[in-house]
Amino acid sequence: MKKISVLGSTGSIGTQTLDVVASYPEHFQIEGLAAGNNIELLLRQVQEFKPKKVSVSTQELADRIANDLPAGTKLYYGSEGMIEVGAGSEADTVVTAVVGSMGLPSTLAAIDAGKSIGLANKETLVTAGHLVTARAREKGVSLLPIDSEHSAIFQCLNGERMEDIDFITLTASGGSFRHLSRDELKNVTVEDALKHPNWSMGSKITIDSATMVNKGLEVIEAHWLFGLPYDSIKVLLHPESIVHSFVQFRDSSIMAQLGNPDMRVPIQYALTYPERWHSASPQLSLAEAGKLHFKEMDFERFPCLKLAYECGRIGGTATTVFNAANEVAVSRFLNRGIAFLDIERIIEAVLDQHESIAEPSLETIAHSDAWARKVAAEI
Amino acid sequence: MKKISVLGSTGSIGTQTLDVVASYPEHFQIEGLAAGNNIELLLRQVQEFKPKKVSVSTQELADRIANDLPAGTKLYYGSEGMIEVGAGSEADTVVTAVVGSMGLPSTLAAIDAGKSIGLANKETLVTAGHLVTARAREKGVSLLPIDSEHSAIFQCLNGERMEDIDFITLTASGGSFRHLSRDELKNVTVEDALKHPNWSMGSKITIDSATMVNKGLEVIEAHWLFGLPYDSIKVLLHPESIVHSFVQFRDSSIMAQLGNPDMRVPIQYALTYPERWHSASPQLSLAEAGKLHFKEMDFERFPCLKLAYECGRIGGTATTVFNAANEVAVSRFLNRGIAFLDIERIIEAVLDQHESIAEPSLETIAHSDAWARKVAAEI
Repeated sequence: MKKISVLGSTGSIGTQTLDVVASYPEHFQIEGLAAGNNIELLLRQVQEFKPKKVSVSTQELADRIANDLPAGTKLYYGSEGMIEVGAGSEADTVVTAVVGSMGLPSTLAAIDAGKSIGLANKETLVTAGHLVTARAREKGVSLLPIDSEHSAIFQCLNGERMEDIDFITLTASGGSFRHLSRDELKNVTVEDALKHPNWSMGSKITIDSATMVNKGLEVIEAHWLFGLPYDSIKVLLHPESIVHSFVQFRDSSIMAQLGNPDMRVPIQYALTYPERWHSASPQLSLAEAGKLHFKEMDFERFPCLKLAYECGRIGGTATTVFNAANEVAVSRFLNRGIAFLDIERIIEAVLDQHESIAEPSLETIAHSDAWARKVAAEI
Repeated sequence: MKKISVLGSTGSIGTQTLDVVASYPEHFQIEGLAAGNNIELLLRQVQEFKPKKVSVSTQELADRIANDLPAGTKLYYGSEGMIEVGAGSEADTVVTAVVGSMGLPSTLAAIDAGKSIGLANKETLVTAGHLVTARAREKGVSLLPIDSEHSAIFQCLNGERMEDIDFITLTASGGSFRHLSRDELKNVTVEDALKHPNWSMGSKITIDSATMVNKGLEVIEAHWLFGLPYDSIKVLLHPESIVHSFVQFRDSSIMAQLGNPDMRVPIQYALTYPERWHSASPQLSLAEAGKLHFKEMDFERFPCLKLAYECGRIGGTATTVFNAANEVAVSRFLNRGIAFLDIERIIEAVLDQHESIAEPSLETIAHSDAWARKVAAEI
């Protein structure tokens, strides 16, 4: 029996993680669930999975559900509650599926507690990759990627030697506006932006997909996860999202991982690795797909990706600021406060005012993050 | 220093094997070379690689080159010469690149001598898969596939468990006549048949590619090499020959190996496995390729593939007869004795007259092989 805690259980990755867990009741057991504000869904999950610990975002929400919990379930809230559900639980694996840089402290705590990490919160590595990877190495803890691209690379590296890698390529669908020119992007709406062609995901990541910020965050994440220099991480446009990513080895051989766009597959892989168990996810038929298309990335069309590479190469707090500025800008766009193209304008303006600090401590990261959010909110 | 003998050194795979060997003079050393009739090329190879043992097909050819060999090179001929160059040499790895079922005795002898086998002679497994794989298991000898499809599957299985496989898929370009209907096949010429769209190969395998016999032989080979039932081996049309083959795992994940069509890559992999060394072979750019196409196999259009599956499922001497009848029919076609569509007609007619013998001995295999050749020559 594998014991699992899920941080961010009511989000897109969280609910799909519970789908996977539910498909193997004799092999998986939920130890803890941490949610944000969606207490209705959390309560349903608690009824089904009977976790020992649950957490919500605030004391007020905790008070509202206190009487609805089964006898054996302990209740927590806030950042400390999330740490309790992860690090403080008896879980073997903690799935970190919260959105944004708030996932960092609980991930670090879970690593310190020796838990395997099912890593879906990419901001953890983007803002504190040097600290998180060093801590994981020190504790001998596995960071198992859940993002489809990183899971693909991870799978392609099965049985391979790192020195045999020439480069890796993350594929990018191009997002909701891939057929639009920069000129046509000026007047796009939030509703249009939320229509991702291939993946059904949360709203923040769907916008990040349209701006290519998501791929930028993935490039930075891949840098830390696989210990590769930025020159060895490429991005290729692949509208079908069927080739999830691939590794080019120095013998001119490419290993690729393919499948339908279904997050349950990489989630399950992180939970069963190094084994593969039967999945209810429909198998890909390449004959039915018929054609796969590939196109060079256009860094002029997607300047946010260029910015992400620049921040990654600068290192230090640059990636934290990139991420924080983007979070605020996306939130302002989703609230209809700014236009779509303002997102990249805001990120760039915040970065222009930032002097990166190398090898930052958690405190410095938190400070840079807060500073970037403040500046991004006021532009 | 890895010591290598090449059986069939003057053929397409043989010369490309020597290209790979020549690219790493500090790591590879040629112990022995066995050729057929092309003594001019063999002599050039002997000058360059200075093998300790060489062999040609007949005593007469041996006599003709005896005085042109360097002092340290011993000369042999015939089937026993080939065994001497492989099993009798100090090679760690024997590359079996002869064409046709004549590759069997020398491969078995090399296995008995404990050599790793770089297996390019597919007839070895097609005619005697049960004997060869049992012998290799017994001796703890690795059978490293050199065919691009089998090398791809072998690479996709790196670090994986056999029980996690759902099925494997061998890709097929469709060969020289893939755009023609069965009706249009009636009057095709040898010259047309020899124009393979993607691969530059020997003439026999190019014809086998057009009839889809080659894929049938590969299916049977895969059955033995990976120990998979025929229901778990599929074939998919993929005109670009870029996805060399792939494995569908039961978690709905597909691992695929891709590259330009260049046999030097799988050859080198067999020689460096489990490492990957830099290759001079140009890297594949998926952006340049632009599109990849996939289409269900059409067993009505390619009846020889259907026959191959049927023979594989029957087992015993059926695959030997399938292979021998095809060798004769292809030879008759290349000599302009029969029409293209007569190849499949001859194979089918010979099989109709054959009663398969289960678990055949080498003697029985040789007998069935000779019988099939005789019948195929007279139809």
